[in-house]
Order: sequence, then structure tokens, then C-alpha cells
Amino acid sequence: MSGSVYGNIFKISTWGESHGKGLGVVIDGCPAGIPIDSDDIQRDMDRRKPGTGKYATKRSEGDKVEILSGVFEGKTTGTPISLAIFNEDQRSRDYSAICDIFRPGHADFGFESKYGFRDYRGGGRSSGRETSGRVAAGAVAKKLLAEIGVEVNAFTVAVNDIVVDEKRFDFAERLNNQFYMPDKEAAQRAAALLDDAMANKDSVGGIIQCEVTGLKPGIGEPVFDKLDASVAKGIMSIGAVKGIEFGAGFEAARMYGSDNNDNFYISEGKVRKYTNNSGGVLGGMSDGDKLVFRAAFKPTPSIAQSQITVNNRGENVTVEISGRHDPIIIPRAVVVVEAMTAVTLADLILMDMCARIDNVKKLYGKV
Amino acid sequence: MSGSVYGNIFKISTWGESHGKGLGVVIDGCPAGIPIDSDDIQRDMDRRKPGTGKYATKRSEGDKVEILSGVFEGKTTGTPISLAIFNEDQRSRDYSAICDIFRPGHADFGFESKYGFRDYRGGGRSSGRETSGRVAAGAVAKKLLAEIGVEVNAFTVAVNDIVVDEKRFDFAERLNNQFYMPDKEAAQRAAALLDDAMANKDSVGGIIQCEVTGLKPGIGEPVFDKLDASVAKGIMSIGAVKGIEFGAGFEAARMYGSDNNDNFYISEGKVRKYTNNSGGVLGGMSDGDKLVFRAAFKPTPSIAQSQITVNNRGENVTVEISGRHDPIIIPRAVVVVEAMTAVTLADLILMDMCARIDNVKKLYGKV
Amino acid sequence: MSGSVYGNIFKISTWGESHGKGLGVVIDGCPAGIPIDSDDIQRDMDRRKPGTGKYATKRSEGDKVEILSGVFEGKTTGTPISLAIFNEDQRSRDYSAICDIFRPGHADFGFESKYGFRDYRGGGRSSGRETSGRVAAGAVAKKLLAEIGVEVNAFTVAVNDIVVDEKRFDFAERLNNQFYMPDKEAAQRAAALLDDAMANKDSVGGIIQCEVTGLKPGIGEPVFDKLDASVAKGIMSIGAVKGIEFGAGFEAARMYGSDNNDNFYISEGKVRKYTNNSGGVLGGMSDGDKLVFRAAFKPTPSIAQSQITVNNRGENVTVEISGRHDPIIIPRAVVVVEAMTAVTLADLILMDMCARIDNVKKLYGKV
Amino acid sequence: MSGSVYGNIFKISTWGESHGKGLGVVIDGCPAGIPIDSDDIQRDMDRRKPGTGKYATKRSEGDKVEILSGVFEGKTTGTPISLAIFNEDQRSRDYSAICDIFRPGHADFGFESKYGFRDYRGGGRSSGRETSGRVAAGAVAKKLLAEIGVEVNAFTVAVNDIVVDEKRFDFAERLNNQFYMPDKEAAQRAAALLDDAMANKDSVGGIIQCEVTGLKPGIGEPVFDKLDASVAKGIMSIGAVKGIEFGAGFEAARMYGSDNNDNFYISEGKVRKYTNNSGGVLGGMSDGDKLVFRAAFKPTPSIAQSQITVNNRGENVTVEISGRHDPIIIPRAVVVVEAMTAVTLADLILMDMCARIDNVKKLYGKV
Repeated sequence: MSGSVYGNIFKISTWGESHGKGLGVVIDGCPAGIPIDSDDIQRDMDRRKPGTGKYATKRSEGDKVEILSGVFEGKTTGTPISLAIFNEDQRSRDYSAICDIFRPGHADFGFESKYGFRDYRGGGRSSGRETSGRVAAGAVAKKLLAEIGVEVNAFTVAVNDIVVDEKRFDFAERLNNQFYMPDKEAAQRAAALLDDAMANKDSVGGIIQCEVTGLKPGIGEPVFDKLDASVAKGIMSIGAVKGIEFGAGFEAARMYGSDNNDNFYISEGKVRKYTNNSGGVLGGMSDGDKLVFRAAFKPTPSIAQSQITVNNRGENVTVEISGRHDPIIIPRAVVVVEAMTAVTLADLILMDMCARIDNVKKLYGKV
Repeated sequence: MSGSVYGNIFKISTWGESHGKGLGVVIDGCPAGIPIDSDDIQRDMDRRKPGTGKYATKRSEGDKVEILSGVFEGKTTGTPISLAIFNEDQRSRDYSAICDIFRPGHADFGFESKYGFRDYRGGGRSSGRETSGRVAAGAVAKKLLAEIGVEVNAFTVAVNDIVVDEKRFDFAERLNNQFYMPDKEAAQRAAALLDDAMANKDSVGGIIQCEVTGLKPGIGEPVFDKLDASVAKGIMSIGAVKGIEFGAGFEAARMYGSDNNDNFYISEGKVRKYTNNSGGVLGGMSDGDKLVFRAAFKPTPSIAQSQITVNNRGENVTVEISGRHDPIIIPRAVVVVEAMTAVTLADLILMDMCARIDNVKKLYGKV
Repeated sequence: MSGSVYGNIFKISTWGESHGKGLGVVIDGCPAGIPIDSDDIQRDMDRRKPGTGKYATKRSEGDKVEILSGVFEGKTTGTPISLAIFNEDQRSRDYSAICDIFRPGHADFGFESKYGFRDYRGGGRSSGRETSGRVAAGAVAKKLLAEIGVEVNAFTVAVNDIVVDEKRFDFAERLNNQFYMPDKEAAQRAAALLDDAMANKDSVGGIIQCEVTGLKPGIGEPVFDKLDASVAKGIMSIGAVKGIEFGAGFEAARMYGSDNNDNFYISEGKVRKYTNNSGGVLGGMSDGDKLVFRAAFKPTPSIAQSQITVNNRGENVTVEISGRHDPIIIPRAVVVVEAMTAVTLADLILMDMCARIDNVKKLYGKV
Repeated sequence: MSGSVYGNIFKISTWGESHGKGLGVVIDGCPAGIPIDSDDIQRDMDRRKPGTGKYATKRSEGDKVEILSGVFEGKTTGTPISLAIFNEDQRSRDYSAICDIFRPGHADFGFESKYGFRDYRGGGRSSGRETSGRVAAGAVAKKLLAEIGVEVNAFTVAVNDIVVDEKRFDFAERLNNQFYMPDKEAAQRAAALLDDAMANKDSVGGIIQCEVTGLKPGIGEPVFDKLDASVAKGIMSIGAVKGIEFGAGFEAARMYGSDNNDNFYISEGKVRKYTNNSGGVLGGMSDGDKLVFRAAFKPTPSIAQSQITVNNRGENVTVEISGRHDPIIIPRAVVVVEAMTAVTLADLILMDMCARIDNVKKLYGKV
């Protein structure tokens, strides 16, 4: 229970360190019969891959995913799907400058406090590279969701103080700029802001929004395994996320009930809502509307400026972090947000199948 | 897996509906030897109890907790602790006005979609009364935490647009007003705002902050069971919570790395930080600093105004919700936030014991 | 994780000690819509109840079960079902004779080693009364199974060396004698043997067989959550069980492959087997045949003879256990075996629903 | 939840098919600081490896294990340990003769019933090769156990009707013969019996005994996660196991309480027992004595004789299974029994650490 297993029915177990032999994930509980090939997964891996944009690290990771088990004749077999990404770029580095130092904003101090020592090579298990396994699993979960018409899309709504106005959302545009921003002009301003930050050896944060369509009402388990609670755990488990909000979110705290309540109405025989302050979730279950949430990412903690900190011998020191680091986490995190959302939803959708005896009878052939 | 079991080692299983025979919780995995009596639990139950303030429902719930098992000679035995609160005020009501209606902002539509029908009496399992079991479990978790010097305190930092200025925090004051606000003047303004809202048959939201002291560094499991991710799930599972943020939270998205990083230094042989933008958590593990987070609560969805909605026969209707309803959830939710935090921390602290073979050897008598 | 939670989807959490306020169980994850009332449960509780036969303790436990939550208008709601049995016969006893003694064959030494002290009243949590919660949960699981035509029946095939010949099985008879033996003559011999044992202040063991009909092929999850492995855990978790075997069981170790393999054939379009050495399970999944297993119970450890043992101060002592004790566990354990089997099967059947994407699509309305 | 994840704290997730790219396991929750290198694991892998004895398949699997993550500078880091065995001998075979046939005694029918199709290459996930991941995980668990002086040893006590007399046990001898029998003469008779069986294109079964020393009293969690119940699940999850018994086992059913109860006594200040009918477990917790259990293995279902069976088109057919198959499972299963025992014990020992608040305080530095 070192915390690298996630999910109840659709259960993933990730492994790997930044500079070890590789990284990967084992997915247990994926239903049989889903068509899948490695290209489906590679497509998402490439979105997470560094080195493709100006604001991403230059390391050529390759990130080539291999399916090691669980797929036969192009379909999932129902048995564990093992996916691995072997590290190609393990160039020998000298870590002596930081191996005994607790970098500000990083997990170094926590790791050493918890385990007594740590794998200091490139952050080890706390590296952003840890998300490779998540993205691979997310790609499989998306294939499951696609079978029932559920789609997950994340994009960037803020880079530092450059916030995309919801009225200006241009979804197609999000795929045209390296920030995944649904607003061309905002993306251009973000680029300029990033250039300045990099010149200052600094980094910036931002906000990612995620939307899910196709969810039927009732997904999510009342009380603890609520839809929003479960998604919140998945998203907050991504390094650098400092907050999450659904629908009106923190703004809801300033609203009156008469404004915040989304009124229901019937349209074409379906229950709909006039507004979506709920963000698509009521009482922890999907309400048939679009699921909408936002996650706040802190700026990349690795910066080249000289910083005050301590080492593991209890001494005050300064550190300058060299090497390859993204000045902003957001662009590569978009697909990670999608992945964690997809994995969480796959699990909740499978759980929901067991909610009614009618379902059991239907599948057992008694109805 | 209807979602009413929470935790891995310190595991709670809550039960009960608003207008059934009672509510309760079974705690499995609480260590043996913790001194406890029902007064310890009742104290927190009373903080959740309605009918004590002007801005709380008038129902006299009693909320008298009984310890049914797991405590012997004043100490926990290591076996399941069963706690029950039997409903006293089950006055017969006429639910015909709402039994087939999906109330706006409520879980009614989700429940009926998921299960095919629902217990419509007072919201059934989705009632705020569901939190009774959480609070009872939280009181036990707090006793565990007290044994190792960990303390959990929640209070209100915003009621609608009345926000407490952090510079004015007066912690003692939070226990003197019914909003748990650490600012006497803000509490007075909140009272006036509530009076207006009630006059308008409306409701308001707010923000609760929670702080935990005494956490040693390294609590929280890397990757999925991170400290912040786990707490986020627990808190977001409380009805009406729409967002959560740790430390600088959403503001971190607007900061530069050089400002957001908390610099470490050594003081009296201990690793400390000059600032706490992290909110006490780095890489998903406690960093030795105070754990700080905020949760946004939406306004109470039950309002007496006439609202547009639909019924379960697919018809557009209007509804006026009568009965006893808090115009604001915040005051009674403070102790629920503490409870979910305490339960989550108890679990993570027990998990952390297993992180090092040195610990195993120490307890097995091999060191 | 003191081990009182069982199951993955159909999850039960039992609580209670022999001489505390009561015992019970919370069932989380039971599908909505199953018709149930307390009589359904009471029927099985009565089979476990002591005091009804000559070879059972005289304590009038009552064992009246109450449904505290999760059932509305006669049907399960999908939310936790809380069942409680409050202790009536809490007559004040003097435990000073055994409170510091480790009784041979009992859990006393283990409990004290593990937790540092124990609830010595009537065995506390390790009492046979602990099974009350199991039986109550089992009755609910049986209702679920009944909806899809799955039936669980246990009976006694051996009392000490009196073994029922499979060729003489008379199933109706098992309900006519207090040993649940499907052989009238064997039951009479068992009665005589028990009389002798009681005269000698001694106790005897026996073997219970359990059979399940109506299981469709494919139930059970490959590798670790196999049908037989899961049932084995459930049954071995019943106090006093020392072994379990499926189908040919230990005898299979003496067979040749050509004899042990059950040959398949087609009959009326269905896959059938000529023999059932498998006991209805192949590769950890049901094979469409009757599930058959046997569990060995040791003799009741509480005997009135003087026994050599030790106390918790490290002294050699002798003990004579007075009070009410069954001279044989078997008759009251039959319904407990059924209960654990039913609970385990309910869980595996729900899990199996998620095995194929076709099932997901069917329930999601995409096929 | 296709059932390939096992354990609560020390949690393993195995993957891989017989004729896919490879097999492996991810171990989550292994404490940090345990010295380990791949030789430690390879040693056990080699014991499971086929092709080394006369009564084992001739396939040269290699079974070379690689540590992909979780070990740094020769010690476990506390993060997931990924172990893989890549298949070398993937020689192209023609499966057309059996791809649509349900082999007697095999999981084929169950797999196809459950998932709608199956990976028929060499049994796919239900192949004996699936145990590779278990053995690799077991080797790591044994390293953990070695740190606290716990040792696991399995050996063969019966091959068909050749049963080793407990009085003749010669433990050193078990490593000298290919059956792992602690009796040289019995092993010779077993060899002769196997020669006959092979001549008849037949297979035989047998019984493995496992013993664990060094367990302190109190290991195992009362009620469902009992020591014996947990071990039983692990062992019964090994393909071909049809039964398990602890201590006196099935023989206990024929004993009187006065004989079956193991009397306690004090020796050198320690609680000991005169006999070990309990097999080292009382009330589901270790009693300080040697843990002893036996598992019955059925004969290998793959035999070269012509057998009656059916295909997946519902037709009666005959099948002759060609290829490489062990005429007895036992010799290679010995290390698998040890592995599942070690993995289960590692988990229960970690759980037990959380049983007392004194332990929590000790590790938190409050005592």
C-alpha cells in the first residue's frame, strides 16, 4: 500500500522511476472484448511526451509504449493488461550536486523522511515521468468509454494571469497551440509570458479544465465514492495540483441558493437542466449534464535561480537546479488530467452496473 | 460497493437514512488501547446537532450516540467499534408533495436514475443527517490522533461574500459565534446577511478552512494515496462541497515558481519552511508544516421559494420545499470537515508505519 | 483492517462481542430492488440460535434481528443495510476464574499477544456468537441469489467417525434431525455418540458439506480471486474450521489424471460433465456443474474436564471451563457455512458482470 | 478486479500469458530498506523453472527475472517493485487442434463462458506459467520475512499413494530429490510410479506440506482475515489445488476435544504447547508454534491419452493433448506454495503492526 494502486474494479498499478529501466502500468479488471492496439495508447503518450514544444524539456524520451499482456487478436482478453515504457535516454548524469539536498517545492524531504533514503536520480518516483503509466492506463480507459459514447476532453483555461474567457472558447483551437488553450489570442499572450519567465529563470502555473460528455445519470456511488470525490482524488494525485472545483466551484460559496440551484425541465422526454452550476454532479452522482471541473497547477518547482534550502545533514545551503525542466507543467499535464478522469470514470461506470438487481437478472439471463 | 465504506486500515462503514430507525458507523481497524468513552464522541455529535442556533433547523434530533461494541474497560479493544444514533424524532410526515419530484440541487434525480426508486423521506441516505456516522467516526479518529499529538481544527473563513481576513484571525473567537468564524465582526455581518437571506426564503454558501498541527513529515503515500489527494476525496465526499484547495491553492496558478516555492531552513535542528504555500504537503507527503486547506460549500439547495423542476413521470412542475432546513450548511459542516480529515489522517498514519523495514524490525523485536 | 470487513462489491462489515450490547453487520453494495423483510433473515438466525436442541447451549439468546437501514417499502434501496441483534441475556457472570487464563484451543493467547489485553467476557469477539452477523448477511445474500436461481445448501456428512455414505444421502431427512445429517440412521448413531461424549465432559468434531446449484459457468475471477480460493477464505474464516476440500479434494491427490479429469459432453445444447471430481470449479471458475465442498470442524475447545494451561502472568495452571457450551459445533455451523458461501458468491456474481464490454454496453443502452 | 491483485498492504499485481511477450508482477507496499538483488529472486525462479528434471516439461523457458523498478543501491525504496520475465521460447506452434476445444480438467470452458473468447495459446493466463509472477513476488516477501527471522519451507509429503511417514522426515533430503520429498526411499518409489504413469500417458497428483517458523503470536486478523483463512485463499488460488488443511486438519473432525486441544505450558518464560494439532493457529492468529498446513494437488489435467470432450460450437469431440506437459505438478509447485505463503504472511505481519496504539506511539516518537 505504498499508494501506487488505484481503483476498485478497473484497477491500475503503476511502477517506475525517472531514471530506472522504465515505467509502466498493469491494468486489472478491464472488461474483455475492447478493440485496442498500441497506436491507440501511443497517441496519448505522445501528447505527454517532452521535447516537442518550446516550453517543454528537451529530453528525447521516446516514450514508446509496449503492450506486454492482456490483448489477443486485437481485443482485450479480460486478464491484466501490462504496458511498459522502457527508458531510452538514461544518460549518465552527475547527481552529486543535489543527491543530499531537499529541493524547495519538491518531494525530496518527504521521501527521505518517510523511507530513510531516496532514489535521487531525476526525482525518482516523484518525477513527472511517473505520469507515463497513468497516461497509458488512461488511453485504455478511454477505449472502454468510447464503446459507450463517453468522451473526455481537457484544455487550458489559464496560464498565470492569462485567463481564457468562457465566452471566447474555441474548442478546435485548443489543438493548434502548445498550451491546449481554446483561444488563439490568449495562447499567444501566454507564449510571451512564458518567454519572459524563462528569461528570468522562473516558471509559471495555470488552470486546466476538463469536460466529460455522454455520462448517463446516476454514475458515482453515494456517500464516499461520489463521482466528484473520486475524480477529485484522481486529479489531486497528480503532482503539482493544488486545488480542484466542480461547476460553479468556489464561486458557489458566494451564490444564493435560488441562483445556484439548476432548475430541471423536460426536453424531448429527457430530464435536463437550464444551467450547470452543479458541473454535472448532484449528490455525488452524475445528473446527465456535462461533467465540468477545473484543476489548479502550481508553477514548476524546478527553477534555475539560486534558492535557499537545506541538505539531509541538517545544514542550510543554496541550490541551483540545472538540467532539463519545463517552465510550465500545464501543456503536458492536459493528457494526464484526461487519463485520471477516464480511469476514474471507467471504474465508477463498472461499479454502477451492480446497483440494481434488475441488471443482475438481465445479465444472468433471468429477465 | 455502494460507496459507504472508507479507508484502508482505519476503515469506516456508515449506514442510515434520515427518517429510518437510526444512523451509525462501524469502525474496523482502530488500534487497541485508546481510552475512549461516549462523552468524547457526544461532544462532536453535539456540534453537528441541529436546533441549537438561529441558523439551524429546529428539529430536536437528540443525536445521542451509543457505543455498541469494540470498547472494553474504557479502552478500544482492536475489534470493530459500532456506534449508533437512533432516530427519536420520526414524526410522521406527509411526503406526497415531493415523493415523485426531483428537487433542484438535490440528489433525487441521481438516486432514482441509479436505483430505480428512492427513499424520499427527508432525502433518505442523501440527507445531511448521513454525516452523523462520519462525525462519530471522526471523534474516535481524533482520540487516536491525540495520542500522538496531532490536532485538527476547522473554522469558517467565508459566508457568501463576507470573507475573514487572515490577518484578523482570532482563533479563540471561532468558538464564540455560531458560524465558527475566527473574527467577531465578520460573524456579526454574516448574521445580518443570513437574516436577509431567510427573509427572502433563500440560502447562502461559504468556505471552511481546516488546519492540522503535529503531523510529522512523510505522512501520505506517493502517487495515488497522496496526503492531499486522500483528504480531497474525504472532504469532497461531504454533500454540498464544490471545491477544495491546499495552501496557496488556486492562487498558486497565478504565482511564479520563485514565489511559490517555500524555502527550507534549519531551526533548532529541525527542517522548517519560511512560507507555507504548499499548505503542508509536498509530493503528496506532509512536509512537517501545518496542513492547511479550504473547502467551498454551495448554498443549501432546499429553499422555500417556488422552483421550476420535473417529476419522475417526465412532467414539468413547480415545487415549494417546506419543512425544516438550514439556510446555510457551513456551521454544522465544520465538525464534519474535521471528522473526515481526522479519519483520513488516522488511516494514512497507520499506513505510514509500514513504510520502512526498520519499523517492522523495531516492532517485531529484531532491532 | 482488524479483518472484520469482507468482500469487494457485496461488502460486509460485522461487529459485536459475545457479552456486549449486541452484534450486527452492515452490508454495503447490495443491489437495489431485492424484496426482503426481517422474517427472511430471522429464519436463518433461528437455525444458528442456541438452546433449541439437546446438543446446543441452553442460553436463550433470542437472536432477534432488526433491520435498521437500507430497506424501504419492502425492497433493498442500494444503500447500506444495517442489521443488529441486541443481546438480551447479559446476565452478570463472574469471569474471575478465566479472565487471566489462556484456554487451550481458544484464541485467548492470540488476542492478548496481539492487542495487549482482551475482552474476556464469553470469548469476546472470538465467541461463536460472532457468527450472528455472518448469518444475517448470508440471509440477505441468499435473497439476492434466489433472484437468479442460485441455491445454497449445507448439511452434515460426518460427526466424529460416523460418516454418511454418499449413496445413502436422503436430503429431505437433513431437516428432520438436529445434526442436519441426510441420513436418519447416521443421525441416530451420532446422537448416541454425543451422549457418551457429554457424559465424559468431552466434545466432538465433524464435517459439513455444502452444495450450490444454479451457478452459470464462468463465475470466479482467474488467478487470485478464484471461486474456490474465495470460498475457501470465507469458510476457513469460520472459527473451528481446520480444512476445506472441493470435489474429489484430498482424494484427488491419489488419482490419475485419466480418472480425475471430468469429461465434457453436450446434452440438450448444454455443456455438461460425466463426473464432478472438479466439484464444479475449473481454473477457479464455475464449470456449470454443482459446486461441492466439505469443511472439517474441530471439536468444541470448551470442555468441562480439567485442563493444563497457563495464565497471562506466565504461570502453569489448570482450568475447568464451566458454563454453557455446545459439545459439538457442527449443527449450528451448518447455516454459517451457507451464509459465508452465499456472501462470497453474491460478490463474485456481481464482479462477473463487469467481465465483458458487451455487458457494459447492454446496461448502458448501447447494444 | 479480474482477480490478479492480491494483498492489502503488501499488494501484488501479476500479469502475463503463457505465450505472450512475458510475465511479471508489480509489488506495491514493500517496506523500504530491504537488501535485495536479482539473484535472490532468480534462485526461486530456478526452482519453478521447467526442463530441469525428468518429470518436468522440456521447454527451456529461461525464466530470467529482471528488476525494473523499486530497488536503488541494492535496497528496496518503498516504491513499486516491478519484476518481469520475458518469454524467450515463443516458438510458433499450431494451436488449430485445440483452439476451439474445451480440454477436460482445464479452465478453457470457464474462460470462454466468462469472457466470450480466450487466448488459447498454451493455456494463456491459466497456464502454470502464470505462477512465475507469484514466485518472483514470493522471493521478495521472503527477503522481508528473513529480516525478522521468519522462514517458510515447503516439501512433498505424498505422490499419489506414496505417503511420507512423518516419523521418517529427513528435511535435508528434500533438497536432494526432484520431488522435494523429505524421505529418500519414498522419492525413489515415487520415481518408479511416475515412470509407469508416463508410460501410460497418464499423470499423478500429490500433497505438499508447508511449515513456517519464527512467527510471533498474534499474527492474523480476527474474523475474516484470519491467518489460516488468508493462507488458504492464497494456496487455493494456485491452479490444481483441491484442498487445504491446517494442523490436524480433516483428522480433527474425528478427534475428541480432550485430545485435540493443545495444552499450553511455560518454558523458559515463553508460552508453548505440548502438541500442535492447531497447526500453529488459534482463533485465526498465530499461537507462537510452527505454522503447518498441507495442500492437495490434483494430477496434471493435460494428458496424452485420447479424451472425450466438446468444442465451442457445442459438438462432442475427442482430443489428444500433445506438447510438453509435466506428468506431475508437485515438484514445481513447492516453491509456488512457499511464495503464496510468504506473500500472505508479509501482508499480515505489516497489518499486525497497526493493532496497538502503543506501536503507533513508539514509531511516532511519543513513547
